[in-house]
Amino acid sequence: MAAFISKDKIQQSKVKKSNISGVSTFQMSVSAENTEVNTPLEEISPSYKELVSKLQTVTQLRRCSAVLDYDRMVLMPSSDDAAASRGAQQSALASIIHEKATDSSIPGLIEKVNDDLMSADINSSQFEDERRVLELTKISFEKNERIPAELEAKRAALGSSAYTAWVKARSASDFSMFAPTLKECFDTAKEIANYHRGGDTSVPLYTQMLDEFEMGMKAERIDDIFGEIQQALVPLISKVLASESPPSMDALHGTFDIEKQKEVNKEIITKMGFDIDSGRIDESVHPFTMSFSPSDVRITSRFSSDEWYQGLAATIHEGGHAMYEQNVGGSCLDIDSYLSMGAHESQSLFWERHIGMTKEFCKWTSAKLGSALSGEGSNFDYSADDIYGAINAVSPSEIRVEADELTYPLHVILRYNIEKDVLEGRMEVDDIPQRWNEAMKSMLDVEITDDAKGCLQDVHWSGLAIGYFPTYLIGSATAAQLAHYCEKDLPTFHDDVANGEFENIKNWLTEKVHKHGRRYESLDAMLEDQLGEPLNPSYLINYLTSKYTELYKI
Amino acid sequence: MAAFISKDKIQQSKVKKSNISGVSTFQMSVSAENTEVNTPLEEISPSYKELVSKLQTVTQLRRCSAVLDYDRMVLMPSSDDAAASRGAQQSALASIIHEKATDSSIPGLIEKVNDDLMSADINSSQFEDERRVLELTKISFEKNERIPAELEAKRAALGSSAYTAWVKARSASDFSMFAPTLKECFDTAKEIANYHRGGDTSVPLYTQMLDEFEMGMKAERIDDIFGEIQQALVPLISKVLASESPPSMDALHGTFDIEKQKEVNKEIITKMGFDIDSGRIDESVHPFTMSFSPSDVRITSRFSSDEWYQGLAATIHEGGHAMYEQNVGGSCLDIDSYLSMGAHESQSLFWERHIGMTKEFCKWTSAKLGSALSGEGSNFDYSADDIYGAINAVSPSEIRVEADELTYPLHVILRYNIEKDVLEGRMEVDDIPQRWNEAMKSMLDVEITDDAKGCLQDVHWSGLAIGYFPTYLIGSATAAQLAHYCEKDLPTFHDDVANGEFENIKNWLTEKVHKHGRRYESLDAMLEDQLGEPLNPSYLINYLTSKYTELYKI
Repeated sequence: MAAFISKDKIQQSKVKKSNISGVSTFQMSVSAENTEVNTPLEEISPSYKELVSKLQTVTQLRRCSAVLDYDRMVLMPSSDDAAASRGAQQSALASIIHEKATDSSIPGLIEKVNDDLMSADINSSQFEDERRVLELTKISFEKNERIPAELEAKRAALGSSAYTAWVKARSASDFSMFAPTLKECFDTAKEIANYHRGGDTSVPLYTQMLDEFEMGMKAERIDDIFGEIQQALVPLISKVLASESPPSMDALHGTFDIEKQKEVNKEIITKMGFDIDSGRIDESVHPFTMSFSPSDVRITSRFSSDEWYQGLAATIHEGGHAMYEQNVGGSCLDIDSYLSMGAHESQSLFWERHIGMTKEFCKWTSAKLGSALSGEGSNFDYSADDIYGAINAVSPSEIRVEADELTYPLHVILRYNIEKDVLEGRMEVDDIPQRWNEAMKSMLDVEITDDAKGCLQDVHWSGLAIGYFPTYLIGSATAAQLAHYCEKDLPTFHDDVANGEFENIKNWLTEKVHKHGRRYESLDAMLEDQLGEPLNPSYLINYLTSKYTELYKI
Repeated sequence: MAAFISKDKIQQSKVKKSNISGVSTFQMSVSAENTEVNTPLEEISPSYKELVSKLQTVTQLRRCSAVLDYDRMVLMPSSDDAAASRGAQQSALASIIHEKATDSSIPGLIEKVNDDLMSADINSSQFEDERRVLELTKISFEKNERIPAELEAKRAALGSSAYTAWVKARSASDFSMFAPTLKECFDTAKEIANYHRGGDTSVPLYTQMLDEFEMGMKAERIDDIFGEIQQALVPLISKVLASESPPSMDALHGTFDIEKQKEVNKEIITKMGFDIDSGRIDESVHPFTMSFSPSDVRITSRFSSDEWYQGLAATIHEGGHAMYEQNVGGSCLDIDSYLSMGAHESQSLFWERHIGMTKEFCKWTSAKLGSALSGEGSNFDYSADDIYGAINAVSPSEIRVEADELTYPLHVILRYNIEKDVLEGRMEVDDIPQRWNEAMKSMLDVEITDDAKGCLQDVHWSGLAIGYFPTYLIGSATAAQLAHYCEKDLPTFHDDVANGEFENIKNWLTEKVHKHGRRYESLDAMLEDQLGEPLNPSYLINYLTSKYTELYKI
């Protein structure tokens, strides 16, 4: 649909325009031929100007809300009263945002701009960005408009009560306590997706749900991609686990000063390209990235005094998310926001895995880590190879968020299969624990004896976020594909990492991903245009196979 | 006008009501006589319910804006881009707040509630809080409504351009660069005050301006109060400065660890009554207090490694402001916000001066300070008396914010006299530097050779905040008066301070000031009702005279 228009083009046309102002009449008349090209749409169409201003207000208010979120998670006192007050503040702001985002004048403005684009002497290849702005606005406005107010209210109420039910069931480790609510979550999510597709029953419900998180992705594509990954990984993991030469994990453990960990984390992530002058690094219980604008993107990490790698992994992961946010455009419109959850996750995983878990990276950081992780009486003197082995060691876990990169995909595939089967009526909510436990056993040889560590471990379903899990694996596969092409395009890739020089790599990602924001209609479309092929899981499979075959000597 | 209704009364009536629900019919009918008393106005008048909900939304949105302010001052990256983005966020939110605060349905709702109060079987002594809510809403709505939109826009634009002009003039130390803009500031402030008084020319313009900051205060009262203070202090300061036994200031200086200062500051202010579970302590360039609700009130301080007292003084000062905010009511309506700037300043100064600068306080803290301020090779071993002398030493300064408590009042009086004379046409803006420098010489024997350290030192006028300065001295005088009555009411006052026991003192302030919020129409009204007399400067004069006569042996 929306063809891509490069930023360079836009900037060039802006430059041309500023060259016109203040020059002689002769030059003016020469340039007059191109007036339409150089005149911003805001000047041709007052409706476009009005629309943009309304959309920017919504963005600004959403950013205000993000500041309140960040403050809540990083700084706010932990009392129930403080939480209730913040809830009231957020809720007042959310009402206003909803009011402004569903402003009934928006469809009329879009129509008027479309008329202006038709009636003026403009050819259809002009104003591609602006056309994409109209399109994105129309899509999200129509989606919102299709949901009846009562259903919206039901969703909000259920989201809140289901969260509470999930917390209780998890702490009792009893899925049956959560099952009735989870059924409601599935039913309500189905109802919403049905409204979202606007009666077009040719769109499968699961594909419609996916679209919330992974714009333009279809369930059939995921079936193929995940099938290929599962087929390759299950036997590979078996071989890895049977290996008689597993790497030692000793380098991970010891007693490490938290302040020194923070310092070395900051040094590493800023060297990697996180612009600390356009952001901050803080601590929180769950690491996250939050952007208030490209000039203020905050990341958080968490640190432990007896294991140092979880802190560094989180810092690099969030730093990867943050570099995406720091390098999108500055229009304050959706066109300059991240493309999809999978695209976002590809950025965090590119840096975490394809840079941070490489031998070259361990070479670059081993001396830094040595001095940061040594303390009074304890000396951290592991070699780059020791560190590489320890941070890449495979150890199947019951818990998704603690899984290593080799077994992680199967955690996602398990959730994807279950949520799709429940949604499409091939299984009952009540049968989730049995199915879960069997799959964990057959795929990863992990025994689940406890719902809390099994099918109750993730918050997502209680928030009606069905169709979210696949984006984690889409992100992994995209990261591997980007890494493949980045290495091909940059002959000094490996040396750069070993020398701690990341500018070329970051710039490559900005050119291929960051700066395009939401100009493409899907991740596949962007990858096809930028790399020459859509998402292809063989890069992830090849990466994992060759890496773990070598590391485990299998 | 608005008589005071105590919180206890309100709570009691709430308790009664909750006792009614769920009891037998017999008891119900017994209670029926009092139905009107116990039924909330929200139930009798749906318009009141609607009005309250609208007002609470405005409060919530203002609190959102405060979170963004806090973040900007404490955490935000310092780049111009980040500042510009935050500016856009704040401005979008400010427009919404303005829109909601000037909702055209508000006057109609007030009228309907008044009708409901008349028509229902309600006597005029009922619902005093609710009547005050109506009154406060009417006052602020009418004030806003009277300002033409163009003047509002002019005020905003001038506020911003005058700030820039002031910064430039101050850095060049050249008042003549700022003078033309300052004239505009005075003219625009005059125009606004004229609209605010709504054609009632019997209200002097300066009194109208004062009302923005010190509700219900009149210029004549200030003339009297400040005149009395000036008359007493000028000769007292002369004597103090001529003293041959000034206290030593040695105890202030040395090399002090910042982290240890922060710790001891936190220990002291939480012991004094700042509830750290309902707030935070952070650092910022200029210390401030910001409240997001009574359950989340943040203070900041700043620390120096070669002087320890400015940090502690700032912590206690802001802690005093914060205790006010932590102890107002929780209705999210203006009735439960601070009464006036003078009332607020009285709380910070009560704790800073009448607790924190006393001999008893120095006794309580000297051991704590001794261990926090000692370092490797340096020992802080000053006695409580040494500390008392050093923190109370008088040293006239060119700069208001660096002035000691004895000379500070004259800095305020100088500004008050000048702004009032300019406003009322008795002097020209161009003559401010000469007048300023002469007054500093005659009142404090301080030579001003530099506009930056003279009449360009304060930001207030560039923000059109004329009538603000007096509230600093109103706060000082109120603090001294409150301290006098608090000591009288609490026989163990001095022992409590010496023992680090502040609960009775904080509770006394909550009873006399905090919990009343904006139920009184002025500071005078509150003091008269709570202490038996309106603001009386003799308490400040007596406090300073007796303290400095003793300290300087004059």
